[in-house]
Amino acid sequence: MDYVYGPGRNHLFVPGPVNIPEPVLRAMNRNNEDYRSPAVPALTKILVEDVKKIFKTTSGTPFLIPTTGTGAWESALTNTLSPGDRIVSFLIGQFSLLWIDQQQRLKFNVDVVESDWGQGANLEVLESKLAADSAHTIKAICIVHNETATGVTNDLSKVRRLLDDYRHPALLLVDGVSSICAIDFRMDEWGVDVALTGSQKALSLPTGLGIVCASPKALEATKTAKSVRVFFDWNDYLKFYKLGTYWPYTPSIQLLYGLRAALDLLFEEGLDNVIARHKRLGTATRLAVEAWGLKNCTQKEEWFSDTVTAVLVPPYIDSAEIVRRAWKRYNLSLGLGLNKVAGKVFRIGHLGNLNELQLLGCLAGVEMILKDVGYPVKLGSGVAAASAYFQNTIPLIPSRI
Amino acid sequence: MDYVYGPGRNHLFVPGPVNIPEPVLRAMNRNNEDYRSPAVPALTKILVEDVKKIFKTTSGTPFLIPTTGTGAWESALTNTLSPGDRIVSFLIGQFSLLWIDQQQRLKFNVDVVESDWGQGANLEVLESKLAADSAHTIKAICIVHNETATGVTNDLSKVRRLLDDYRHPALLLVDGVSSICAIDFRMDEWGVDVALTGSQKALSLPTGLGIVCASPKALEATKTAKSVRVFFDWNDYLKFYKLGTYWPYTPSIQLLYGLRAALDLLFEEGLDNVIARHKRLGTATRLAVEAWGLKNCTQKEEWFSDTVTAVLVPPYIDSAEIVRRAWKRYNLSLGLGLNKVAGKVFRIGHLGNLNELQLLGCLAGVEMILKDVGYPVKLGSGVAAASAYFQNTIPLIPSRI
Amino acid sequence: MDYVYGPGRNHLFVPGPVNIPEPVLRAMNRNNEDYRSPAVPALTKILVEDVKKIFKTTSGTPFLIPTTGTGAWESALTNTLSPGDRIVSFLIGQFSLLWIDQQQRLKFNVDVVESDWGQGANLEVLESKLAADSAHTIKAICIVHNETATGVTNDLSKVRRLLDDYRHPALLLVDGVSSICAIDFRMDEWGVDVALTGSQKALSLPTGLGIVCASPKALEATKTAKSVRVFFDWNDYLKFYKLGTYWPYTPSIQLLYGLRAALDLLFEEGLDNVIARHKRLGTATRLAVEAWGLKNCTQKEEWFSDTVTAVLVPPYIDSAEIVRRAWKRYNLSLGLGLNKVAGKVFRIGHLGNLNELQLLGCLAGVEMILKDVGYPVKLGSGVAAASAYFQNTIPLIPSRI
Amino acid sequence: MDYVYGPGRNHLFVPGPVNIPEPVLRAMNRNNEDYRSPAVPALTKILVEDVKKIFKTTSGTPFLIPTTGTGAWESALTNTLSPGDRIVSFLIGQFSLLWIDQQQRLKFNVDVVESDWGQGANLEVLESKLAADSAHTIKAICIVHNETATGVTNDLSKVRRLLDDYRHPALLLVDGVSSICAIDFRMDEWGVDVALTGSQKALSLPTGLGIVCASPKALEATKTAKSVRVFFDWNDYLKFYKLGTYWPYTPSIQLLYGLRAALDLLFEEGLDNVIARHKRLGTATRLAVEAWGLKNCTQKEEWFSDTVTAVLVPPYIDSAEIVRRAWKRYNLSLGLGLNKVAGKVFRIGHLGNLNELQLLGCLAGVEMILKDVGYPVKLGSGVAAASAYFQNTIPLIPSRI
Repeated sequence: MDYVYGPGRNHLFVPGPVNIPEPVLRAMNRNNEDYRSPAVPALTKILVEDVKKIFKTTSGTPFLIPTTGTGAWESALTNTLSPGDRIVSFLIGQFSLLWIDQQQRLKFNVDVVESDWGQGANLEVLESKLAADSAHTIKAICIVHNETATGVTNDLSKVRRLLDDYRHPALLLVDGVSSICAIDFRMDEWGVDVALTGSQKALSLPTGLGIVCASPKALEATKTAKSVRVFFDWNDYLKFYKLGTYWPYTPSIQLLYGLRAALDLLFEEGLDNVIARHKRLGTATRLAVEAWGLKNCTQKEEWFSDTVTAVLVPPYIDSAEIVRRAWKRYNLSLGLGLNKVAGKVFRIGHLGNLNELQLLGCLAGVEMILKDVGYPVKLGSGVAAASAYFQNTIPLIPSRI
Repeated sequence: MDYVYGPGRNHLFVPGPVNIPEPVLRAMNRNNEDYRSPAVPALTKILVEDVKKIFKTTSGTPFLIPTTGTGAWESALTNTLSPGDRIVSFLIGQFSLLWIDQQQRLKFNVDVVESDWGQGANLEVLESKLAADSAHTIKAICIVHNETATGVTNDLSKVRRLLDDYRHPALLLVDGVSSICAIDFRMDEWGVDVALTGSQKALSLPTGLGIVCASPKALEATKTAKSVRVFFDWNDYLKFYKLGTYWPYTPSIQLLYGLRAALDLLFEEGLDNVIARHKRLGTATRLAVEAWGLKNCTQKEEWFSDTVTAVLVPPYIDSAEIVRRAWKRYNLSLGLGLNKVAGKVFRIGHLGNLNELQLLGCLAGVEMILKDVGYPVKLGSGVAAASAYFQNTIPLIPSRI
Repeated sequence: MDYVYGPGRNHLFVPGPVNIPEPVLRAMNRNNEDYRSPAVPALTKILVEDVKKIFKTTSGTPFLIPTTGTGAWESALTNTLSPGDRIVSFLIGQFSLLWIDQQQRLKFNVDVVESDWGQGANLEVLESKLAADSAHTIKAICIVHNETATGVTNDLSKVRRLLDDYRHPALLLVDGVSSICAIDFRMDEWGVDVALTGSQKALSLPTGLGIVCASPKALEATKTAKSVRVFFDWNDYLKFYKLGTYWPYTPSIQLLYGLRAALDLLFEEGLDNVIARHKRLGTATRLAVEAWGLKNCTQKEEWFSDTVTAVLVPPYIDSAEIVRRAWKRYNLSLGLGLNKVAGKVFRIGHLGNLNELQLLGCLAGVEMILKDVGYPVKLGSGVAAASAYFQNTIPLIPSRI
Repeated sequence: MDYVYGPGRNHLFVPGPVNIPEPVLRAMNRNNEDYRSPAVPALTKILVEDVKKIFKTTSGTPFLIPTTGTGAWESALTNTLSPGDRIVSFLIGQFSLLWIDQQQRLKFNVDVVESDWGQGANLEVLESKLAADSAHTIKAICIVHNETATGVTNDLSKVRRLLDDYRHPALLLVDGVSSICAIDFRMDEWGVDVALTGSQKALSLPTGLGIVCASPKALEATKTAKSVRVFFDWNDYLKFYKLGTYWPYTPSIQLLYGLRAALDLLFEEGLDNVIARHKRLGTATRLAVEAWGLKNCTQKEEWFSDTVTAVLVPPYIDSAEIVRRAWKRYNLSLGLGLNKVAGKVFRIGHLGNLNELQLLGCLAGVEMILKDVGYPVKLGSGVAAASAYFQNTIPLIPSRI
């Protein structure tokens, strides 16, 4: 059943799907249940409440949709907008590109603001568009919080400030797929109208839940949104929320219990501690890249991502060969460069239920691979840089003090 | 974590989600993997090939969509039809009703053919519509193979015959959610254009895969189908099938390995033996119902379902109380009566990886509950009727002879 | 990997190993851990405390030995006795026979009190021996609380009363392998000096823990007991108990967490409710046997076992054929007749985490098998008798009311 | 249930119990089964055959005893020897000490040959004893192949050569607990009479199986061995081997399937490749220790162990603090120094289903801890040394080429 067994544990450092912690695997190791019994709604009720915490919202309404991030995107758009609506969308990498492609296929009038891959969303252009839009033709701003292809984190608080500065009523729709539960995200404070993530990212679950959270304003927008939608229609959920049965169709029992366990782990560690851990992992990775003499695909420090680092390789190296070799020789899974940066970057995902020694094992592996493919790296240099930082910053594990 | 633990094993007899066999649970008990590594496409390639067997098709193209049955419905419709298209759809129970509701919300021109709940699709009306439609305004026939709410199985071969008789080019779209892998289904022989099922039904997996299979004619129809679709767009899959990477977005690694295990079990038992086992389970259940002096919601033998039996209770009994009591006292999960038959029927699901003694335990439980709620059943009567039939028909387990 | 897969769930009705509940399987689904870290002793400390409850002791000292019931026997004997010591031991079936065989091989002077298989321990003979033993040559009484081979439960309170009546200081060593956690057992009240069980019995765990509990008097006896012992030596445990590290050698991490989960389930249900449930299951089984017109191997009601029923078959039937057929045709696992009753009885184990509908499925299966092998049973008769009793006695599941 | 959860994966580098690979966890994730059904003996039969391969024997007879390594020791001794028998036993560390303690408590006449901890067995003394023993009073040589407390591997071929040189008939009993499946071991070639290991060591299973293999000469010795034994008596196994039922008492179903999976993994990788991988892991660890400027507890290269490295710390550091800190701050489990070397060494276990990047993560962790406790290590130095070696020696994973 395992096509490609290798000795020891697979070192999974793609930016999703990520490592599932054992307590979550255990929680999901179960038979199906009748989702119409009193148990599943009781479980769901608490989950829906607790999920708000990962969005830092009290006013939002979460939906746990049996889908992927792509479906979550579709849900965010079709529930709040009508075909032909003008939306401003930032193209900064493969995942923002795919979302824009979806937006166009869903027949919105997409006003694309493009940046070089490796840069963040161009908020100056946004500002000029908002300034020019006194007629409020822009119905929504769509932005990827963390572009997984290039390791770029956008500053959402600035987007909110611009909208506020221009008193612009556009909805703010945020793809938080590779940020939520790992990078600071504040739905209420930043006035995000729809935020979304996928279970296989920082929540450290299997793929299968698109977790979407809608602000009251977004819910209001559903009333006039004319996009055709059925499977992704929030109103079907809201109807069953009111009935107390919660599910318009069959949920995955295993993922519900898995989500319960994943939230328990997050809350036990403390969401802020989780975010701090990701900052540690991200910083250490960047220090290693620097020590190797390589460049980060992300062009400015303000955009550095704490969940994924895209590493530029010298022109004489094919980054895909690094990824292949990682897997074939070291049982290490790294992320490929995608589209425009294919062959030029490889990616280290450092998100989810992951600790520092796991990352150091990965970094040590990357060093050997770099040497394999002819890059003159000094073995141990990246690990040393990362360790020096870690040794100063890792806290004691609270339950073990 | 378990909200409502009761001693012993839960007896799961809802018509989905159904019991997951241990080998499938084992196969899914695993960490995430990089779905872009060579392993996952290699696994998917064989799955896509093997899944054809459960549809009995060689020419069809399967899609393993991370969604539920509702999403699979949407995928079947939006990939093959355009808004405004006339479709004939049969309303015979809650699930056909929900599909029709979806069809209407997706803006098709739905020509509803209604039957009493408990009857099958009215094919005479279909015939007259086909006869009258020399202009071929009917673009598709939508039919639920097995209506899970009433336990009614429609005769798909007759539908095909009518279409052939009138040389009508309408697409034949079939909901096989509660039939495929349990009730004889022949995609190619019956000229089904889109067939679909959900992983949590007779495949005995968790919820999370909508498995859709498209005929060449259905694939051809995608070229002109104007329904807006992105997440459910088959073309995105086909593009990645061609590339050999298979996935337009992240699949559930666990469900892929689970599907592999589930298919292995089906093939080891033999699909025809699986169908024969369901026929035994269905027949035995009906014999028990008869022995209890109760009526089957299904009005004629030709429509009897081998995966679910909806049992009519006398007017002085609330069938919901039976379901509640089953759960509260006997750790038995039965299906509620839905919508028009709420309070009037309870349902016994007898599908998936289930054997005769499991069913007999359930039937014995139902007898006690009937007595609990005041119905003068003779305890043991249904079990005796079912056992008598089983004792004559159960084959030896081949691997143990 | 599964040599003999059959559809649906295996119906496991041997008197051990028994069905493992899902929460226990989940708890054990884990990697190894360093048993010298602070976590494992912390876990063990509470386990050792909590395990006392299943023995109903406050003064006893439990040992969780990585062994089977046979090893637990050896531990009970060698820690408290010296070679040549006279012990009175009751031979009433295969398991008491095996224990006696062990006692003889360990060089004790075994005074065997034999009964017909199907009868309990002959306490009149014990009384006469005690009466005659004013010199206190008898060092221990060894008795199986529940003889698994014949379904006979001995009355331990009577044994204690006899010892008290004659003010006899003999140790009372009790095999509670198939009784503890299922049949009322009171270590302190009955003055039991060593009690023992195995994890795979009513605790519903995998095999691997021999759980032994020693009274202060038994611990005192270790000081003079000259039997050679190392692996089974309680003093090695006591030494590590004092150090707070608990383990003289490596324990099974999985079984420790499994035991934690198993105890949690027992305590949630309530030990007395668990015992009452076993009484219901035992009574119902006996009613079924009666309804079938068959005889219980147990010759008097006072000895009826609530964990296992040995059913006598007519002389023209080979009971082994019943067991074979159960497995080959019905995926049902029944207990063979052993030694003297081989071919004459088959056994239904009804212990552990088991509920009434599971048992009824088994009973329905037994009826079909009886018919298969030519016994003129009325199908449904046993189920009816058992159901009638259950329907009057099953309580609501507290967590679901 | 998890007393001391820490984020990410526990880095388990104690020399047992070791990491369990996912396929083995999956194989063990199962309900109990009737061990008297035809399935379990069929499974056992093949296991007993396949287990011979890990001992490199064709003539040996394996016993899969539900016990730990301590029990396996007892089984080796009591089945082959009589109280009072003279045995030569080497004291070179904590585990040989414990075995000798057992030998003495079992009443053998133990002729202890002591070495400094950190040295191997003194074979010169053995030679002189053999030379002097023309009367063949020495009945057995007991030797630990790999002393887990000090990381010392003894040369068994030399022991055999000495026995042969002096034509001495003493039995050769070998503790292979931390060597078998990881360090080259050749039962037949080296004329080992009893070899044994535990499931939680290089086999990478949970604790619970003591795996013992007896040569024909050892089996012959059982006939005259007068040591009292019941639970550990091989003859009880042999009796059931002959009957084809295999088990004198209840085995752990889960461990049997786990062993099947563990052997499958070993055979897929190839036993010689597994041994080569351990040699790589051991060599790399030693290179790291050297780079750190620390000393190996093992005093000569000929004794270097490929499964565990005991690292000497400077006198101003308490090695126990290193182990505590590893666990509390880095989620890393290292081995304590035991007995004579307590406080002086910490141990890195590098055995079982483990790969190079896992080890590098551990080594990076050790570096930080060394710095934490005030040792002036150059961060990255050990990793660099190990990586340089790995980068030259790691083969491609065959299934992924």
